[in-house]
Amino acid sequence: MTPLSPTPRSTLTRKKDRGRTDRAELYAVLDEGLVCHLGLVLDGSPVVLPTGYGRDGETLYLHGSTGSPSMRAAATEIDICVTVTLLDAVVYSRSVNDHSMNYRSAVVHGRARALSGDEKWHGLRVLTDHLAPGSWEHAREVSAKEFAAVSVLALDLAEASVKVRDAGALDHPDDVEADAAWAGVLPIRMSFGEPDTDPKCSVPVPAHVVERVGPSTKLPR
Amino acid sequence: MTPLSPTPRSTLTRKKDRGRTDRAELYAVLDEGLVCHLGLVLDGSPVVLPTGYGRDGETLYLHGSTGSPSMRAAATEIDICVTVTLLDAVVYSRSVNDHSMNYRSAVVHGRARALSGDEKWHGLRVLTDHLAPGSWEHAREVSAKEFAAVSVLALDLAEASVKVRDAGALDHPDDVEADAAWAGVLPIRMSFGEPDTDPKCSVPVPAHVVERVGPSTKLPR
Repeated sequence: MTPLSPTPRSTLTRKKDRGRTDRAELYAVLDEGLVCHLGLVLDGSPVVLPTGYGRDGETLYLHGSTGSPSMRAAATEIDICVTVTLLDAVVYSRSVNDHSMNYRSAVVHGRARALSGDEKWHGLRVLTDHLAPGSWEHAREVSAKEFAAVSVLALDLAEASVKVRDAGALDHPDDVEADAAWAGVLPIRMSFGEPDTDPKCSVPVPAHVVERVGPSTKLPR
Repeated sequence: MTPLSPTPRSTLTRKKDRGRTDRAELYAVLDEGLVCHLGLVLDGSPVVLPTGYGRDGETLYLHGSTGSPSMRAAATEIDICVTVTLLDAVVYSRSVNDHSMNYRSAVVHGRARALSGDEKWHGLRVLTDHLAPGSWEHAREVSAKEFAAVSVLALDLAEASVKVRDAGALDHPDDVEADAAWAGVLPIRMSFGEPDTDPKCSVPVPAHVVERVGPSTKLPR
């Protein structure tokens, strides 16, 4: 795999020790998140919107409606920025100033293109497999009318950076010596709860839904 | 409380039924999130970065280092967009196309200003109380040197919108009638795990940390 090779936009300017150059780490963050935050410039102002996405290889697929001004703008091959953030812990330090968070974040810069035909079908499948694995096979397939009303964008992962903080409290030695306040890590956990079946549905909860349920520290969020 | 009165930027263009005009809903989303996504334009390109924040009244405080180009740019009173998203559930529908998510999101537009003096102290306290309630009283206070090295921005909440999806599967009547695929809601839960004390720390885990632990469907995320 090609390592992440930074452009000026994707070069970390601070906390460089938190930067990762392994493409597998980029994929891991993107595959674990559930929504991204899509940033673009609309009428001269920055706009940041939560958006569904999915990844296949070196392509990030973004989901939208053809009626959304942001998605319509993003489809005109303007610069966009897509960020996925996973929160892992609150880090308590002996000093207020050294409090922090453990997190993993991926930032992708580029220009997206609107898909059509087979590419769009593939993108829809990737988006579905990301949000609800198993649903593509289980649920009623997308009709021609539905297909026309949805927009799927593709963004290349060439220009991306990954940042990770995965450490305990990093206090000044004087504060460690003083031992006057609690220091440690409070993990943040994401999990799926019990499925709540629609009252008009008599189909039992399928295995692909059941298997997502349960406590875990490593679940999509 | 003044209701949320949309400007062109903060007017929802689609799924307007998901828009809320109650300022209390804006506060609730902002108070429950743990990080925001800060969007701005840097060298002509949109940039979206996860950022710590806190709210007090009608002011959103943003946390940064004086060494961060994005925070330095944000402090020059350029347009920024701050988005906080809470994910509540994956919504499974009888059709692939009607799959969705339940979520609450807040989008704030405006220009931030860098704080100094007493206002900056107050902002730091709000940021700390948001990330780690109780730490302001418990941990070693911020020194003059630390105070100088951090940057705190204030953003007015005047121009904001809130969007909420909180519903089950919304399938076409034909799909409901066919009853051929499972439909329902898979809740997403966020909770704090067991605190992991720093090996060099002999201070017991304080109550303000212990009380965050445990399963919950309504915890900061």
